[in-house]
Amino acid sequence: MFLRNLWYVAGRSDEVGRHLFQRWILNQPVLLYRTEDGTAVAMQGHCPHRSLPLSKGRLVGDEVECGYHGLRFAPSGECTHVPTLEKVPATCHVKTYPVVEMNRWIWIWMGDPALADEATIPDSHWNDDPEWSVTEGHLEIGCNYALLVDNLLDLSHTAFVHTDSIGDRSVAETPVDTEVSGNNVTVIRRLKDVPPPPYFVTLHGWNGNIDRSQHIQWTPPTFIHIVSWTAPVGTDEGDNSNALVYRVLNGITPATERRVHHFWSIPRNFARGAEVDVQQQEENTRILTQDIAILEAQQEMVDRLGGSPDSLEAWVNIPVDAGAIRARRIVATLREQELQAQS
Amino acid sequence: MFLRNLWYVAGRSDEVGRHLFQRWILNQPVLLYRTEDGTAVAMQGHCPHRSLPLSKGRLVGDEVECGYHGLRFAPSGECTHVPTLEKVPATCHVKTYPVVEMNRWIWIWMGDPALADEATIPDSHWNDDPEWSVTEGHLEIGCNYALLVDNLLDLSHTAFVHTDSIGDRSVAETPVDTEVSGNNVTVIRRLKDVPPPPYFVTLHGWNGNIDRSQHIQWTPPTFIHIVSWTAPVGTDEGDNSNALVYRVLNGITPATERRVHHFWSIPRNFARGAEVDVQQQEENTRILTQDIAILEAQQEMVDRLGGSPDSLEAWVNIPVDAGAIRARRIVATLREQELQAQS
Amino acid sequence: MFLRNLWYVAGRSDEVGRHLFQRWILNQPVLLYRTEDGTAVAMQGHCPHRSLPLSKGRLVGDEVECGYHGLRFAPSGECTHVPTLEKVPATCHVKTYPVVEMNRWIWIWMGDPALADEATIPDSHWNDDPEWSVTEGHLEIGCNYALLVDNLLDLSHTAFVHTDSIGDRSVAETPVDTEVSGNNVTVIRRLKDVPPPPYFVTLHGWNGNIDRSQHIQWTPPTFIHIVSWTAPVGTDEGDNSNALVYRVLNGITPATERRVHHFWSIPRNFARGAEVDVQQQEENTRILTQDIAILEAQQEMVDRLGGSPDSLEAWVNIPVDAGAIRARRIVATLREQELQAQS
Repeated sequence: MFLRNLWYVAGRSDEVGRHLFQRWILNQPVLLYRTEDGTAVAMQGHCPHRSLPLSKGRLVGDEVECGYHGLRFAPSGECTHVPTLEKVPATCHVKTYPVVEMNRWIWIWMGDPALADEATIPDSHWNDDPEWSVTEGHLEIGCNYALLVDNLLDLSHTAFVHTDSIGDRSVAETPVDTEVSGNNVTVIRRLKDVPPPPYFVTLHGWNGNIDRSQHIQWTPPTFIHIVSWTAPVGTDEGDNSNALVYRVLNGITPATERRVHHFWSIPRNFARGAEVDVQQQEENTRILTQDIAILEAQQEMVDRLGGSPDSLEAWVNIPVDAGAIRARRIVATLREQELQAQS
Repeated sequence: MFLRNLWYVAGRSDEVGRHLFQRWILNQPVLLYRTEDGTAVAMQGHCPHRSLPLSKGRLVGDEVECGYHGLRFAPSGECTHVPTLEKVPATCHVKTYPVVEMNRWIWIWMGDPALADEATIPDSHWNDDPEWSVTEGHLEIGCNYALLVDNLLDLSHTAFVHTDSIGDRSVAETPVDTEVSGNNVTVIRRLKDVPPPPYFVTLHGWNGNIDRSQHIQWTPPTFIHIVSWTAPVGTDEGDNSNALVYRVLNGITPATERRVHHFWSIPRNFARGAEVDVQQQEENTRILTQDIAILEAQQEMVDRLGGSPDSLEAWVNIPVDAGAIRARRIVATLREQELQAQS
Repeated sequence: MFLRNLWYVAGRSDEVGRHLFQRWILNQPVLLYRTEDGTAVAMQGHCPHRSLPLSKGRLVGDEVECGYHGLRFAPSGECTHVPTLEKVPATCHVKTYPVVEMNRWIWIWMGDPALADEATIPDSHWNDDPEWSVTEGHLEIGCNYALLVDNLLDLSHTAFVHTDSIGDRSVAETPVDTEVSGNNVTVIRRLKDVPPPPYFVTLHGWNGNIDRSQHIQWTPPTFIHIVSWTAPVGTDEGDNSNALVYRVLNGITPATERRVHHFWSIPRNFARGAEVDVQQQEENTRILTQDIAILEAQQEMVDRLGGSPDSLEAWVNIPVDAGAIRARRIVATLREQELQAQS
């Protein structure tokens, strides 16, 4: 039961091209490719004839030819050819999905196409902004998407999971403020006069304590934008002249109930250049891999004990959960609205 | 829900001998071996005492001794010995299945033994005919048997799946005739003045276009006999003097709902001899392996999207499906008859 | 549906220490560790907050800190710290289980703690007795625990499964006596003037036939104590002066419905010393590994044919099953009593 009438990241721009590529999104197989003019296409991943994955066929110009019996489908989803038939029956077509390519990501709309409004795509322009250097990646994690949303909406976990890099005990012991505005949830944490975590020392060479803040904004269903700000003790939060500021943009796309895509990018406007890019890429991937071990162990425990990671009923809540709980409530309301709109 | 009152190929003659060999057939474990006089025996694969596979026991003369507690079973299924017991209880016996060995294959009857009539075993005498050279094999494929029947009843797929060997686009674009006679279905395709596919050029050295025909006959539940005829343009179909003719005999045996055995043999009466045998064995295995990739991808898609490959409800049909659809209808009728006979 | 109000072996003394170790017992994840004074602790294996396995956290003194959000739990199960909270909510605690360490094994009580009575722990003092040399081990087997209990309560299987070591056909052909005393079941087999099995010849150098006896005692739910006695023909059973006597103690602990722990020890009071220990360790492990192949094949067959290894309905019984059947009946009665006590 995923929300459908919202935008999800379907892929990175650089992984979709003149080849047939299948990805599972919201329990559906989706075929991704580009037409000859470079436009990205997202199409139902299986042939309506006998269900062969269309990714096993081939591109003929802008059309997809099924690799089993040669049916051809245009980017519109129309079937343009069935061997031996002069006129293709109207029932023979594939579903296509609205896609928008923006800032290195391809966004997909899995719900009612009439409701797809580009203006509601979350802002990720930093991915493309020449003022920012970007490291980015795609991970596939063996857990329900809700566990990954929880993880990113509560950074107290960095103190325990990422102790050797970006975490410090002071983060966990500092309470957060949680704000809800419309369907957005924001979690804010401000730390004054605390030790810098190991990786920040590496990056900036801090000497002694620092001030920090974390702004985390969730946009339904699954986009999370984190702004991390670090500066010498006493610096005004608006003053970036000697601050370490970076953003973490997260596009979270459920593949199945137990599998999720994590599209991440980390634009920064300090220490730019290829050498730091390489170092950041390695370090960020290492950090996110530490999360995978946690998330998959959680999912396995939930599966074995019998429960749903999408529900909170079996769990005790603590203060840091405030943001995640509010986000889940908004998802539940939106789901109810989608169900009512269908009936 | 497999048809039971019909013959299936249980194994190749050369894989059954004086050893205990288990194979799953129609969701049942079946033990296969030969008595000292060479007669093939098919017996329930698990001990009625504590379900150990009897294949883990040993042969004592013509009897099978269970490898856990030493119960012995005769080829008739009778239990002849239980340790410490003078008289074996009547409830202790194993089911046995009628088998007939014919033309290098061992046929099994999984249904009511009273109905087993050898005369209804499909003809495969070419496997044994000195006038024919044979290549043959056994493949186990991770799909429902119905998907393999569909595959062999519609050779238009050769144009897309076997492009590099036996397929040519002209096959797909030539309509078929489908005939039903009793419970048999025949699909016929005739191609006039078409290019020869790559492997036929290799085999016969064709220069320029050819005429071709394909006769495919299905006998329920799962026997498929293909006759492929190729000759210079304008040759009479009855004239084999300069033709390339071969047969493809297919014994298809469901192991489980998602696993099938494919016993195949390809007798030919041209280019006989050991050297061509080796070449044919390699090439035929390569071609059939291309089908496995398709069939297992189909099954995975059906499993994930939730459906049954044994039903056609979710699928769009096209003209080449005519034979497969008729075969499925006959299976449905026979299944209904089996169910009524049971009640 | 496992019996809960009885003692099970949770682990070997030497595998539990100052580290966090998770084991599944009766379908529950259990965390095992020792406090600084060496006391063994058994605690619910997952954090009540978000279900991360606590084994992924760390020991802080005698407390366990969750590796995701830093909640801390005392050996009593009390939550002593939640980051940012002055007062931990009463709902936040973990279940703990009574444990008793005795004779190299750690016993656990998974049921109502009020009923846990150390006096009912089966006697395994030979594990610690300086008069006895011990080989021991832990195996995890992919089957329901009931199949392993059946195996150990009926040693006729040694004639077929362990032919090359401790088995001889004479064992299978000698009837057993089965006695029930309270909730204990004893199976006794006496063999007079029979050939010694191969491993006994190796151990003792027997020349010609011997007398043997096997006493097997089952204590619910899953403790099995075997006494094997072998001596020259005509020796009084009480006379151990020239006898080969050893015990096999078996603590059987269900992990899940399809997985079981086998804690075994084999104390002997003959041929003591390190050299024989090594030889025994190898040989005993080899013999028990032969059983694993049988037990897992049984379980797979039961799973595929659809049934329950915990029920006997689908099976034919023979005389050697008498002990196992009585043990299953006692388990059924105890289960009924546990269910009634709950309601």
